[in-house]
Amino acid sequence: MKKLFVLGLVMTSMMAMAQENKRSITLVNYETDGVKQWLPGTIIAKKGETVEITLINNVPSGIHGFFIPTFNVRKEVKKGTKEVVSFKADKEGLFEMKCHMHPAHVGGQLLILP
Amino acid sequence: MKKLFVLGLVMTSMMAMAQENKRSITLVNYETDGVKQWLPGTIIAKKGETVEITLINNVPSGIHGFFIPTFNVRKEVKKGTKEVVSFKADKEGLFEMKCHMHPAHVGGQLLILP
Amino acid sequence: MKKLFVLGLVMTSMMAMAQENKRSITLVNYETDGVKQWLPGTIIAKKGETVEITLINNVPSGIHGFFIPTFNVRKEVKKGTKEVVSFKADKEGLFEMKCHMHPAHVGGQLLILP
Repeated sequence: MKKLFVLGLVMTSMMAMAQENKRSITLVNYETDGVKQWLPGTIIAKKGETVEITLINNVPSGIHGFFIPTFNVRKEVKKGTKEVVSFKADKEGLFEMKCHMHPAHVGGQLLILP
Repeated sequence: MKKLFVLGLVMTSMMAMAQENKRSITLVNYETDGVKQWLPGTIIAKKGETVEITLINNVPSGIHGFFIPTFNVRKEVKKGTKEVVSFKADKEGLFEMKCHMHPAHVGGQLLILP
Repeated sequence: MKKLFVLGLVMTSMMAMAQENKRSITLVNYETDGVKQWLPGTIIAKKGETVEITLINNVPSGIHGFFIPTFNVRKEVKKGTKEVVSFKADKEGLFEMKCHMHPAHVGGQLLILP
């Protein structure tokens, strides 16, 4: 009985730690006169965190891509849908986010703090 | 006379210091297909500054909330109005900004530099 | 012949260095109910980089200004046009970006990392 209780405590604290190391962010696709971008255009996270990004695309002109080359994140988001990507922020620095489908689209910035 | 002059100098420099330590930022509420967020979604300030945020809500769908749990900032902004909140950035780090009224709304990030 | 080859190598690596030290960012002008701002509202760069900012103004209400006092960047962008400004980020810190034509417009933030 006591062992089960201790095991429960350990599991709870492990879950809490996992929770702490996850950062959830939502980006929304905006379009003005054919120019598209995900906003907010800046994401900040800390090294070691798992970054989960929800991508919402409601613009009328269709599919929009989301691409973070450094962390190998790549997703197409169809009009009227929502997609979720996640990655482990295992290095610090300043990185680019862009649309791999339409290089002309406006990119964003990802800052991973130490 | 000389004392008055010195007092004036001291007051002027105190006012200058107060000025220096205040950071004014404006956020605007955007809505696309029911998804709302304050933009810019990122605020950066320095530890020790008083951060004054002006919140402008012009979206058609009504009231929108602004909430920074860590600094106990909480404000409802009615459609067509402008509200001002302020807080002392007395700790550094990366903090969440969200809408306490509608948790589903898109949040933002507050970075307090050392 | 060998000298030409070495010269070529040197030039290639100088071009690569120049490439590495340039950061390209695009900002788009948004307007809601008369309130305008450039988004993303946050730009992050590293000290020593040349920051090139493309400004796209598609809002219906006309010209919009872009001004970074610290780096002496100042540009008016007419409706339906695109302008490019660039500056050398020769000091680190947190700086303001605003519209020098309409001080009431919503400003942004420029963070230059060490």
